[in-house]
Amino acid sequence: MKILIINGPNLNLLGKREPEIYGSQTFEQYFEELKAKYPIIELSYFQSNSEGVLIDKLHETGFSYDGIILNGGAYTHTSIAIADAIAAIKTPVVEVHISNVYAREAFRHHSYFSSNCKGVIVGLGIDGYRLALESFLK
Amino acid sequence: MKILIINGPNLNLLGKREPEIYGSQTFEQYFEELKAKYPIIELSYFQSNSEGVLIDKLHETGFSYDGIILNGGAYTHTSIAIADAIAAIKTPVVEVHISNVYAREAFRHHSYFSSNCKGVIVGLGIDGYRLALESFLK
Amino acid sequence: MKILIINGPNLNLLGKREPEIYGSQTFEQYFEELKAKYPIIELSYFQSNSEGVLIDKLHETGFSYDGIILNGGAYTHTSIAIADAIAAIKTPVVEVHISNVYAREAFRHHSYFSSNCKGVIVGLGIDGYRLALESFLK
Amino acid sequence: MKILIINGPNLNLLGKREPEIYGSQTFEQYFEELKAKYPIIELSYFQSNSEGVLIDKLHETGFSYDGIILNGGAYTHTSIAIADAIAAIKTPVVEVHISNVYAREAFRHHSYFSSNCKGVIVGLGIDGYRLALESFLK
Amino acid sequence: MKILIINGPNLNLLGKREPEIYGSQTFEQYFEELKAKYPIIELSYFQSNSEGVLIDKLHETGFSYDGIILNGGAYTHTSIAIADAIAAIKTPVVEVHISNVYAREAFRHHSYFSSNCKGVIVGLGIDGYRLALESFLK
Amino acid sequence: MKILIINGPNLNLLGKREPEIYGSQTFEQYFEELKAKYPIIELSYFQSNSEGVLIDKLHETGFSYDGIILNGGAYTHTSIAIADAIAAIKTPVVEVHISNVYAREAFRHHSYFSSNCKGVIVGLGIDGYRLALESFLK
Amino acid sequence: MKILIINGPNLNLLGKREPEIYGSQTFEQYFEELKAKYPIIELSYFQSNSEGVLIDKLHETGFSYDGIILNGGAYTHTSIAIADAIAAIKTPVVEVHISNVYAREAFRHHSYFSSNCKGVIVGLGIDGYRLALESFLK
Amino acid sequence: MKILIINGPNLNLLGKREPEIYGSQTFEQYFEELKAKYPIIELSYFQSNSEGVLIDKLHETGFSYDGIILNGGAYTHTSIAIADAIAAIKTPVVEVHISNVYAREAFRHHSYFSSNCKGVIVGLGIDGYRLALESFLK
Amino acid sequence: MKILIINGPNLNLLGKREPEIYGSQTFEQYFEELKAKYPIIELSYFQSNSEGVLIDKLHETGFSYDGIILNGGAYTHTSIAIADAIAAIKTPVVEVHISNVYAREAFRHHSYFSSNCKGVIVGLGIDGYRLALESFLK
Amino acid sequence: MKILIINGPNLNLLGKREPEIYGSQTFEQYFEELKAKYPIIELSYFQSNSEGVLIDKLHETGFSYDGIILNGGAYTHTSIAIADAIAAIKTPVVEVHISNVYAREAFRHHSYFSSNCKGVIVGLGIDGYRLALESFLK
Amino acid sequence: MKILIINGPNLNLLGKREPEIYGSQTFEQYFEELKAKYPIIELSYFQSNSEGVLIDKLHETGFSYDGIILNGGAYTHTSIAIADAIAAIKTPVVEVHISNVYAREAFRHHSYFSSNCKGVIVGLGIDGYRLALESFLK
Amino acid sequence: MKILIINGPNLNLLGKREPEIYGSQTFEQYFEELKAKYPIIELSYFQSNSEGVLIDKLHETGFSYDGIILNGGAYTHTSIAIADAIAAIKTPVVEVHISNVYAREAFRHHSYFSSNCKGVIVGLGIDGYRLALESFLK
Repeated sequence: MKILIINGPNLNLLGKREPEIYGSQTFEQYFEELKAKYPIIELSYFQSNSEGVLIDKLHETGFSYDGIILNGGAYTHTSIAIADAIAAIKTPVVEVHISNVYAREAFRHHSYFSSNCKGVIVGLGIDGYRLALESFLK
Repeated sequence: MKILIINGPNLNLLGKREPEIYGSQTFEQYFEELKAKYPIIELSYFQSNSEGVLIDKLHETGFSYDGIILNGGAYTHTSIAIADAIAAIKTPVVEVHISNVYAREAFRHHSYFSSNCKGVIVGLGIDGYRLALESFLK
Repeated sequence: MKILIINGPNLNLLGKREPEIYGSQTFEQYFEELKAKYPIIELSYFQSNSEGVLIDKLHETGFSYDGIILNGGAYTHTSIAIADAIAAIKTPVVEVHISNVYAREAFRHHSYFSSNCKGVIVGLGIDGYRLALESFLK
Repeated sequence: MKILIINGPNLNLLGKREPEIYGSQTFEQYFEELKAKYPIIELSYFQSNSEGVLIDKLHETGFSYDGIILNGGAYTHTSIAIADAIAAIKTPVVEVHISNVYAREAFRHHSYFSSNCKGVIVGLGIDGYRLALESFLK
Repeated sequence: MKILIINGPNLNLLGKREPEIYGSQTFEQYFEELKAKYPIIELSYFQSNSEGVLIDKLHETGFSYDGIILNGGAYTHTSIAIADAIAAIKTPVVEVHISNVYAREAFRHHSYFSSNCKGVIVGLGIDGYRLALESFLK
Repeated sequence: MKILIINGPNLNLLGKREPEIYGSQTFEQYFEELKAKYPIIELSYFQSNSEGVLIDKLHETGFSYDGIILNGGAYTHTSIAIADAIAAIKTPVVEVHISNVYAREAFRHHSYFSSNCKGVIVGLGIDGYRLALESFLK
Repeated sequence: MKILIINGPNLNLLGKREPEIYGSQTFEQYFEELKAKYPIIELSYFQSNSEGVLIDKLHETGFSYDGIILNGGAYTHTSIAIADAIAAIKTPVVEVHISNVYAREAFRHHSYFSSNCKGVIVGLGIDGYRLALESFLK
Repeated sequence: MKILIINGPNLNLLGKREPEIYGSQTFEQYFEELKAKYPIIELSYFQSNSEGVLIDKLHETGFSYDGIILNGGAYTHTSIAIADAIAAIKTPVVEVHISNVYAREAFRHHSYFSSNCKGVIVGLGIDGYRLALESFLK
Repeated sequence: MKILIINGPNLNLLGKREPEIYGSQTFEQYFEELKAKYPIIELSYFQSNSEGVLIDKLHETGFSYDGIILNGGAYTHTSIAIADAIAAIKTPVVEVHISNVYAREAFRHHSYFSSNCKGVIVGLGIDGYRLALESFLK
Repeated sequence: MKILIINGPNLNLLGKREPEIYGSQTFEQYFEELKAKYPIIELSYFQSNSEGVLIDKLHETGFSYDGIILNGGAYTHTSIAIADAIAAIKTPVVEVHISNVYAREAFRHHSYFSSNCKGVIVGLGIDGYRLALESFLK
Repeated sequence: MKILIINGPNLNLLGKREPEIYGSQTFEQYFEELKAKYPIIELSYFQSNSEGVLIDKLHETGFSYDGIILNGGAYTHTSIAIADAIAAIKTPVVEVHISNVYAREAFRHHSYFSSNCKGVIVGLGIDGYRLALESFLK
Repeated sequence: MKILIINGPNLNLLGKREPEIYGSQTFEQYFEELKAKYPIIELSYFQSNSEGVLIDKLHETGFSYDGIILNGGAYTHTSIAIADAIAAIKTPVVEVHISNVYAREAFRHHSYFSSNCKGVIVGLGIDGYRLALESFLK
């Protein structure tokens, strides 16, 4: 089983940026723990701050992987182009947000991605990625 | 660890109503499986079609349970009173929706509950309840 | 042929409340006339001021009756939960409003029920219930 | 008793246009059945695709007929001029729509006519005209 | 003089819930003080979390009491059915809110009840009930 | 000096329709008085209930007359086509409304014509036509 | 007959400010012409840039004058307080705008005053004051 | 204890203006009664139709008085500047409206002041000032 | 191959009206050129300023022609009735606008017709009709 | 004559993605056909999923090419930056959409590009590129 | 070079009001520093809480001064009359706000003045006045 | 002191693009002047048309520079991702716009960046960058 985790803009700052919202662990540390916990899954990770590069990655993996876990960061709220890429590919996508976006600014309450995704996990912290993984194992 | 699952209006029809959206298993069957899978959790279940009765239940359990998993059904989109009850109690609440509400009518895209909840799991089918349970175990 | 008439909140005051809008006949008097006029129909009547109780009633009758005539009162404009119940049951529902809701406050112009109903009859007074009955006989 | 049925734009295509929505009977066939069923009513019929011609007809008949049954088609949603004509005449008007307009596009949910009409019958098929007739007999 | 105080959803938690907003006194304690202060008034108290039960209570008392003081809690912002009940009864109703709802979330700024009430008292703490009482004595 | 007065839909009912708003004089009577009062002006009058016929008239006269006084009735609020005709012709147009449209329904507060007209006179009764005439004499 | 013309903010700059919109004549010059033309009217003139002073003037004259011609300038679009003053006084008010406000910015299309005025004259230049005067003579 | 009552625009007409809404007593008469009733309070009164003058008064008294009762009239709905003054001063302000503003035009339903005030009393007639006074005594 | 070009309101003024937007050639001249260029197509032309007449024409030709090229002028933005006619007929319709409607007033940005048409060509001048023709040849 | 065709995000999937909407031909195949058909035109093609790269390309070619045909994909609806680039360059741009965007989701109905383009061709399939080419030949 | 600084409502409280937002220096102190720093500029200062008085000042100085620096306080968001005065005068105006209005309430995000000003400086503290001065020196 | 100036999309065309709005000087020329004028500042410059590249640059410099001057061009109005980057970094950012965006299209009036910036300078031409620099020196 091949699963890809994609993180969007500013998520490379995880552990540095606003730790009171996102926690102080870097994603790389977390990712190693996750791989250790689910050895049977072929798990990979990708991050970019560029909308177009994220689309390229979805195209590249979206016809062969078994699942994609996508935290699109702020592009979630503005990118119809990524939403179209999710719709265009074959691999099911689960959308994850670390913080509870519904308890933040109104412009974070709308996601262009959700209607094209298999499901959405919001506000359960960095553990949300693991739960998304669990949902593919099901 | 004491966890309560609360289902709101029309979810008593699960297995009967629109199986193409919600699947054909009744919630009672699913609940037995779930209890078997997590024997260390003291798991209970409650369903009502009445807004006031759901609020009463939240008050009654919300100061002693370790977690509440709430699928508020259509009240999710209309009940500030239940949202207030979630805010008023001490027990953390995880909001679950079986179907992908973001792929349905626009009036199902807004939840009054989410900002008062610990987190939200949407569209991952009946397995969403299990993932919510997992999030409390974390 | 089994037909149920359901009246929602405040319609128990019919004949007492704002007679210049709703007339001075009680619904019980009207219901007796209606039964007398259509002896071949097994006609019954239910009223409640509670959203949850109305949903319970729709579930209870909505898989065996031949038709339901529903005047949801103010819940028409606020209850997605009742609208879901109408969609979930098998029995066709005709929505009735005694007064011309389109000539009243703007918030009475929208019905959550209509799109899930077989049809809608508005503003033809208490006679609207009889016309709904006629539509089932057709 | 003199009753006029007025059909607005595109209703001359009834039986030809989108039969899955409007049925395959022409209105002329239905009108003959209706006249046969209610011999005591002096029933007449008029159709036009022109807003101005419909207004002319309302002026011409609206001070002498006992009732007008109006299916304004798409003008329902755009014509304040016809709505003004309904308000200006003496004859009561019942608005009829064959299909359930509330289950179609959002721009079909608003009627400029309804607040000036005696009542409204929606979604009960071509039988809606007969029910409107019944409401005048009452 | 017979006056009834009605409290809506979550107000049974008064003294427990968010004391920084609502104070730490229970309503029952306050109610005893109030009765002691105004011995000439026949003062009673009712609380429910259910919309339908609140409507039933308004119907039951609304044709015989001299005044009703209503804190509808969150139903204030969502219940047209309770608003209709207030309009339907004879007894004048004064709407009370303990906290300053205008300094809270936007969805708490609109009340369906106010236009049907005699008056509104907002943000003056639990003392608002006494002031409402005073307004009936006038 | 050649001036044309054009009246739109339902204004043929002037004197008959809602006299409490529009007065009981017919426009024809008023028009004769007006012609008598301004003998030096070559004054003519036209009325139609049809949008297309009104456009035809504007085209026909709008390159040779010295002024047009237009009361477009309800088309004022809905017809971009007439507004385009006003913009397309050479003759200046003064828009007149007999009643104070700003004290009536909200949908009567917006005019598609006004921005293309020389000026607008509202609410000064049937005398508004004379004032418009005066404005051309200036 | 006593008539008062009131000009609001920035209209003291008439003749100086944006002459391509408002013309190059000062209001004082125009006012002298107007008085000469209508010697039987006791005509006076007042201008202020202050909302409160305009209200004071309306109060002071609004129970004894026969008519007030008001060009409220930008306060037209923002002052409910002046609109209330117009409603509170006895003297009828005709609202005048020199330029065609409907051909300018959208925020100039709405007037708080119009619904409380006898009538409105827009876009007919400085001659609009004379036409307003004529309307009082009628 | 020093309390100031401030009345805004048009409230100097109280007793003259629209007595069916505001009653026929002048505020000065009422104020004398109020002073007599609460001799222990050093009560003063101020009225102006000018926004700036009201702000000046709030600045002048807002650091030394114990309470201000403010009926801002129409400025309630339009003046952010007065709202800022309320926020800037130290003295708590109670907002009062004589009529039930929620039963009037929609633009009267929003107050810029309320979120900065201690509380709000609406629709309880001129007695609302006394209740506000009572709230300071508490 | 039978193709019909239909022009709506004010397009009879082409060559006369606002030549800086629409050019100075009349449509009749252009139509002759077009016929000469595509001799194998049986090409015809129709223009009317009346919504109803345009609907009649669509009904009359819409079950036998191979293509219709429609420039609905201002009815594009207001006529649901014409949009319904396009949906009701069998012949595919290509919508054409001579000017770039997206660079003009906001109310010209929305077309009721487009969703029912085969395609839309905007802003390419009178040559747009030829391109529409080409699209049928394809 | 030098013409450039630019395709935006996800259009590299043409022939793979949702063939029921976009057809099963790849753009490269189509482009070869097009070049063969118009040998006198120096035709080139560019595709990118990145907004910034598309802007770079517009800058690079937009002062020397004779025409650009741009299908901006989803950036059409979100990118003011590309719209600014279109306005900044000298080369005229024709906007093309393969599918009828007006028959799809509401957020696809608005284009930031159109007002800065020479023209727009929508819904005529992949043939729309050829028609755009034709419009430059004119 | 003659430059005038104008401060609007509540800015006389600077140093007293909400020092955590505006700092604790009075404007008079700051103004003396500024004059000392730019001795070659003839610098003057004016403050008023009254909209009309601010307009008067703009008229009085706006045809002879070389620059005006305007902090309109809350009138920025509500006064079209001041915006008109800025447009009517000859002297260029630079708008200054001490705090970052975009990080405060939504109603502070819109300025009626900005489009008529030479430029805007926001959120750079009291130093913003100096930067505005610099911009005139340029 | 290390200061970085970042220019966003299309600002590389400065001096070429729409010189009537932006002037004819290239930014590189201006930047050399600026460095010469402020020799004590270590001043650098970066431009990109790509949202992701701008975010990368903000991350790279935003924890070590003393100030960033950002003209985000059109991304100002669409990029929540850049706004998040501004919030995530430590270096204060001053937002600059050369033209007066408030006097241009409505979609340029809103900035996602402003609330996360230290301050904003708009419409003061290319000199705005120098004023921003001055604000850091303060």
